[in-house]
Amino acid sequence: MQSVIASLLFLFIAKVSARSISNDHTLFDSNFKAKLIAEESRNYVGGNLVLNEDEQKVNDILMKYKLEEIDDSFHNPQYFNFSKHYFTYKNDIDKSSVYQIIKKMPKGAALHIHSSLMLHSDDMLLLTYEDHLYACYTGDKLDLQFSENTPARPCPIKWTLLSELRNASDNVQRFDDELRKFFTLYSKDENVYNADIDYSWQRFNTVYRVIKSVISYRPAREKFIYMTLKRFYDDNVMYVEIRSGLHNLYELDGTIHDKIYLAELYQQVTEKFIMEHPDFLGIKFILTNGRSVDIKKIQETLLFARKFKNDMPEIFAGFDLVGQEDKGKRLSEFMPALVEAKGNINYYFHAGETNWLGTTTDENLFDAIALGTKRIGHGYALIKHPSLLAHVLNNDIALEVNVISNVVLSLVHDVRNHPLATYLALGVPVVISSDDPGAWDSDPLSHDFYVTFVGVASRNADLRLLKQLALNSIKYSSLDTARKVRLYEIFEKRWKIFLSNVIEKCG
Amino acid sequence: MQSVIASLLFLFIAKVSARSISNDHTLFDSNFKAKLIAEESRNYVGGNLVLNEDEQKVNDILMKYKLEEIDDSFHNPQYFNFSKHYFTYKNDIDKSSVYQIIKKMPKGAALHIHSSLMLHSDDMLLLTYEDHLYACYTGDKLDLQFSENTPARPCPIKWTLLSELRNASDNVQRFDDELRKFFTLYSKDENVYNADIDYSWQRFNTVYRVIKSVISYRPAREKFIYMTLKRFYDDNVMYVEIRSGLHNLYELDGTIHDKIYLAELYQQVTEKFIMEHPDFLGIKFILTNGRSVDIKKIQETLLFARKFKNDMPEIFAGFDLVGQEDKGKRLSEFMPALVEAKGNINYYFHAGETNWLGTTTDENLFDAIALGTKRIGHGYALIKHPSLLAHVLNNDIALEVNVISNVVLSLVHDVRNHPLATYLALGVPVVISSDDPGAWDSDPLSHDFYVTFVGVASRNADLRLLKQLALNSIKYSSLDTARKVRLYEIFEKRWKIFLSNVIEKCG
Repeated sequence: MQSVIASLLFLFIAKVSARSISNDHTLFDSNFKAKLIAEESRNYVGGNLVLNEDEQKVNDILMKYKLEEIDDSFHNPQYFNFSKHYFTYKNDIDKSSVYQIIKKMPKGAALHIHSSLMLHSDDMLLLTYEDHLYACYTGDKLDLQFSENTPARPCPIKWTLLSELRNASDNVQRFDDELRKFFTLYSKDENVYNADIDYSWQRFNTVYRVIKSVISYRPAREKFIYMTLKRFYDDNVMYVEIRSGLHNLYELDGTIHDKIYLAELYQQVTEKFIMEHPDFLGIKFILTNGRSVDIKKIQETLLFARKFKNDMPEIFAGFDLVGQEDKGKRLSEFMPALVEAKGNINYYFHAGETNWLGTTTDENLFDAIALGTKRIGHGYALIKHPSLLAHVLNNDIALEVNVISNVVLSLVHDVRNHPLATYLALGVPVVISSDDPGAWDSDPLSHDFYVTFVGVASRNADLRLLKQLALNSIKYSSLDTARKVRLYEIFEKRWKIFLSNVIEKCG
Repeated sequence: MQSVIASLLFLFIAKVSARSISNDHTLFDSNFKAKLIAEESRNYVGGNLVLNEDEQKVNDILMKYKLEEIDDSFHNPQYFNFSKHYFTYKNDIDKSSVYQIIKKMPKGAALHIHSSLMLHSDDMLLLTYEDHLYACYTGDKLDLQFSENTPARPCPIKWTLLSELRNASDNVQRFDDELRKFFTLYSKDENVYNADIDYSWQRFNTVYRVIKSVISYRPAREKFIYMTLKRFYDDNVMYVEIRSGLHNLYELDGTIHDKIYLAELYQQVTEKFIMEHPDFLGIKFILTNGRSVDIKKIQETLLFARKFKNDMPEIFAGFDLVGQEDKGKRLSEFMPALVEAKGNINYYFHAGETNWLGTTTDENLFDAIALGTKRIGHGYALIKHPSLLAHVLNNDIALEVNVISNVVLSLVHDVRNHPLATYLALGVPVVISSDDPGAWDSDPLSHDFYVTFVGVASRNADLRLLKQLALNSIKYSSLDTARKVRLYEIFEKRWKIFLSNVIEKCG
């Protein structure tokens, strides 16, 4: 017996679309297909946008390339890279004409980015050229520390200046290549592509620890922030919401800066960056705790968050919990603290970054929404919860989808099976982000946009989808109205330039 | 901008469930989670069933084992087999206590089974012990032919009696092990697990050709049918709908039997089987054409189908098209013939067995439904078509889901990403089948039920889901009312015995 309520769930649209199709086998509605396809196209994310003349020209160019790429792969699926792990085709994306257009496209904002893992390993490698960097390097493990003298922390071998190790190597290029591997999960090892979720997260946490050891040093962090902004800006991202626990920084002379210092440092560097790049809007913070902490710690952080919000409202967005969701504590375990603060602090909870349907991890989705989360980080499992998905649609809660992250962290293999395909078809408010682009050497946003557009979305989805995704990133940001308007203006201006450039080059 | 229609799509359920939850951050509805989880549980396939006392006892036993299995895997995902290819855990399923219960459970009917690939390779191997079987065996390729004398067809080496080859081998066991590999896609080769869809279908077609060469011989086919019925019966399947093109059979003396002879042979063997097993209901045919034929051939088959239906209404169910959907012709190419016959012949179309959203393959889903298909074979891509899914729900069209087939034929890797998880949550009318259980050495239905129950469905889904899936297989069969009633009666009787057995053994 089919569920009555689930039937009713779809009743409205079914009535609209199916009024004239009958179950009677003697009748045949030759318009059924055309009508339903048109309806699905209207409902698709971006389906309500109307392209102007220039947009239509760019769309023609874009779709010519897109259909070529997809149809080539359709006839030779051994070359359809998106059925394979991101690392197998990552370095080929550059060759795609669709990618070249997406790269140039203004993409609005990146709303789901973790602070420590947002910088490409090429740039992380540059930071290892800073003076006073000591290494404890055992071949497969690396610990780093900036210090005036040999660090006091124990090292199984011996702390050595990285510059000395580098100079002593017979091949600096090879030395640096090996060193860079510690700053990225990217790998050519097939075992990595078929790894289970725990193994992938172990690799992730190892990379995180090495990066953290570099960027806890104030001068390195200052450059790290600037280089990150530059990478995002060059990828045509105009605004970033950064999830961070705001840890302490240290100086060579032993000075320790507190958490708020780091926020101020971000602010100073960003202001300098905006001076040089006036069409970059800035950053805001989503303050985070790891999921393993106890409720006392959450309460402390939420107290700090109120002060942060009060003192620096222009860069404070809200609060979240981070780390492997399956392994961490559940939102429900922190309920008293989270309920207490929800009137003052906006939540942007990770939830449903799991394949374990019906577990307590999976229930984070319900708790996040009950707590009034403004957006949902990932929401990968939401597809399996129709009532909750209905609530998300009805209350216009955006999903921050990070397709490449979900592949690298072992939720999905063939991106065509990513639930984003259905979210797009349902018109769910979606923003595309990259989670930890530094951790897998991807573009700040362009790779995720590309994989979404060619790998996940319908063959028929066009420039309207891309534009809507960019517009969504502004609409669902934590910016106040005035700054949203400013960001829309920046976007509009850049959008026109983008159109002209594509038409000029390819028209 | 979020699609208005998609919002409305979910409006009903959202209103029901979310009436008392507010976006106002100062309010918190502590019942939100419990209410939505209860609602999702009711909407789930089987969610409306109420378990009687014995069923509750069995459910307690079943769920104890299920939760143990899932929770063990949750804490050690490297052991969670369902995230990996079916072939990596196939031989371990036997050890599962959940499987042992499912194996014993009456499962009703198997509604999506292809005739040539329904028998386990162990039994196929037995058929190679029949007299007069010649082999053209080049080491990696095998051609077989029953014949009084050396077959006339060319062979690059030399036709030899298989019995001679077997006798000449120094190790019959090893010889048979090698021989059996030609009758199954099962493999321990890791490359097979990561194969693309074309490669998997090439392997599939190779196995199909070898099996076909054996079962085109009348005496072999007779045994093949009997052994198949026995396997299904032993797996507690009471009725089977078989998709078949009804090809010719040959005898040693050169006699060629026509298509209708094969149908009659099936009928005779089935009648004999029912005499010996009175609680087996029988079989019906869904007549098929390959997708590569031209419309003339379709018209011929549909003409034959009318005669078949007229002459043997008790075993004729309807018509379908088969073969790799991406590579074949589209339903739309046969539209005039299919529209013309739809008043007389019921359709059970394969559709949406693809990952290529927005392609003409994908459009088969629309055409199948416009043509009034009674059920949809696979419907894997339907999840990405909300308007069509609404129509399917509204018109109570069943999906024939074959999870293991979709893994083996490279649509999905981790079964937790199979759209069935969402179909179950939406209460879509689903029947579980196995497509070609012989081709991958799986149980006729128990493996697919097990993977569905433990791998795909919610951790919370219980005996009600299993029972509903069995009931669905009766409800959505092509049987007339009288025989449906008979099948329900058989099921009820066996269900009670099943409950007693489980309670006696484990209670």
